Amino acid sequence: MLLTFWHKELIFYHKPPKNTMNTHHTLPVIGHHHSPLTQKFGIPRQPNLVAIKSHIRFVAPFNNPDAFVGIENYSHLWILWQFHHNKEQVNFRPQVRPPRLGGNDKIGVFATRSMYRPSQIGLSVVQLDRVEVVDNQAILHIIGADMADGTPIFDVKPYLPYVDGVHEAMGFDKPSVRDVKISERAEGDFEVLILNNTLQNDDKDIILSLIAQDPRPAYRQNEMGVMCSMRYKTVDVDFIRAEDMLVIEHIRRVKP
Amino acid sequence: MLLTFWHKELIFYHKPPKNTMNTHHTLPVIGHHHSPLTQKFGIPRQPNLVAIKSHIRFVAPFNNPDAFVGIENYSHLWILWQFHHNKEQVNFRPQVRPPRLGGNDKIGVFATRSMYRPSQIGLSVVQLDRVEVVDNQAILHIIGADMADGTPIFDVKPYLPYVDGVHEAMGFDKPSVRDVKISERAEGDFEVLILNNTLQNDDKDIILSLIAQDPRPAYRQNEMGVMCSMRYKTVDVDFIRAEDMLVIEHIRRVKP
Repeated sequence: MLLTFWHKELIFYHKPPKNTMNTHHTLPVIGHHHSPLTQKFGIPRQPNLVAIKSHIRFVAPFNNPDAFVGIENYSHLWILWQFHHNKEQVNFRPQVRPPRLGGNDKIGVFATRSMYRPSQIGLSVVQLDRVEVVDNQAILHIIGADMADGTPIFDVKPYLPYVDGVHEAMGFDKPSVRDVKISERAEGDFEVLILNNTLQNDDKDIILSLIAQDPRPAYRQNEMGVMCSMRYKTVDVDFIRAEDMLVIEHIRRVKP
Repeated sequence: MLLTFWHKELIFYHKPPKNTMNTHHTLPVIGHHHSPLTQKFGIPRQPNLVAIKSHIRFVAPFNNPDAFVGIENYSHLWILWQFHHNKEQVNFRPQVRPPRLGGNDKIGVFATRSMYRPSQIGLSVVQLDRVEVVDNQAILHIIGADMADGTPIFDVKPYLPYVDGVHEAMGFDKPSVRDVKISERAEGDFEVLILNNTLQNDDKDIILSLIAQDPRPAYRQNEMGVMCSMRYKTVDVDFIRAEDMLVIEHIRRVKP
């Protein structure tokens, strides 16, 4: 006996779906990312490298807390988001110069995670901190995002360890981090800024981890003695390379 | 000395990007997936579970071979694709009934990899087989896709082991597979179909692996003695559950 039920289903699915031949797809922005990093400079080059805390606020109707029930079964999540800091490309450029290669060598855009890609979609694994419900709206707290403040969010999916954790996968190794030193003056700045509540206690650790990633472009990472500035919350962190380490020289409050 | 270069860049990035407040994003379909599985029934529930071979053909200008230079440095890739078999939802439904839970319990859509999600975007890790260039157009051969034939493709990104392989991630375990037996009649069918070139030699292994995943919905997996049919290339594979195993009863050629 060959059950009709199945064949009905098969026949249904055998019809080519109507939208197969679409040349474009439009999807809703379901929310926005909120982070102490308001600028591109300083954002870690990949997710999960710095335990920076941030959150996603969703827009209606996607902020319905029901849509997040069960998410606590997972420790990590995928976030699909928009590279909204780069201008939309009018023409497809098949090759990019990734910072990992010092910005000189060109490789295919589909062989990179570069922001300059047709979809404009970024993919990041982050740690799930918690779901908070405020005024019956879900707010997703995450750790380790490599997205700027304001980033439009397209999707949240659980990280499935047995599928997504490919232990035999081969690719490039994790880049090394630099030692970071805090100058006496910067130590004083931190103390004052924590005392007057401009920064919280753990912000100092996060700032150290962010600088340790050396946010400068690869082609400038050998430059000594040039002061660079990373904005974090309402402060600018000025740092300089000296020998093999990066030294935080001072932290300046930014005028609001 | 605080270098002007950096501050120029900071000032530039500090301007809120124009499209932050967009409510939608439109992205191009860069290609389509080609697979022996033309129907939804039988497609593995997750990628990388069955070593099924398939390929992606890109549409111009995304088929430029230059766009794939360097991809051979990676063993695995992420594919972003469209769940094009489900109808577009007019209203957002915050909860779904995932097959893993037997189709009864509801959980939040963002706590699942369900196809019924606002973005309609699926995310799959697959193995990179090779890039083939035909008529100066790139064709990407992959292994382990969980996408149907005809699936629209949005993006290809390298799998970065040190970022994407989260060894401490927690979630659900890999579902077990069932033993598969081939009836005498089905063995004969396989022989004939391989002899007359309807199937290739390794198709038999792939078919066995696909059936071992038990493609029936969770709420029907305890049903005994009901014949089910999975389409693969140009054949229908009829199988039945008997005790704890699945038995392939016969393989029928489908009229073209």
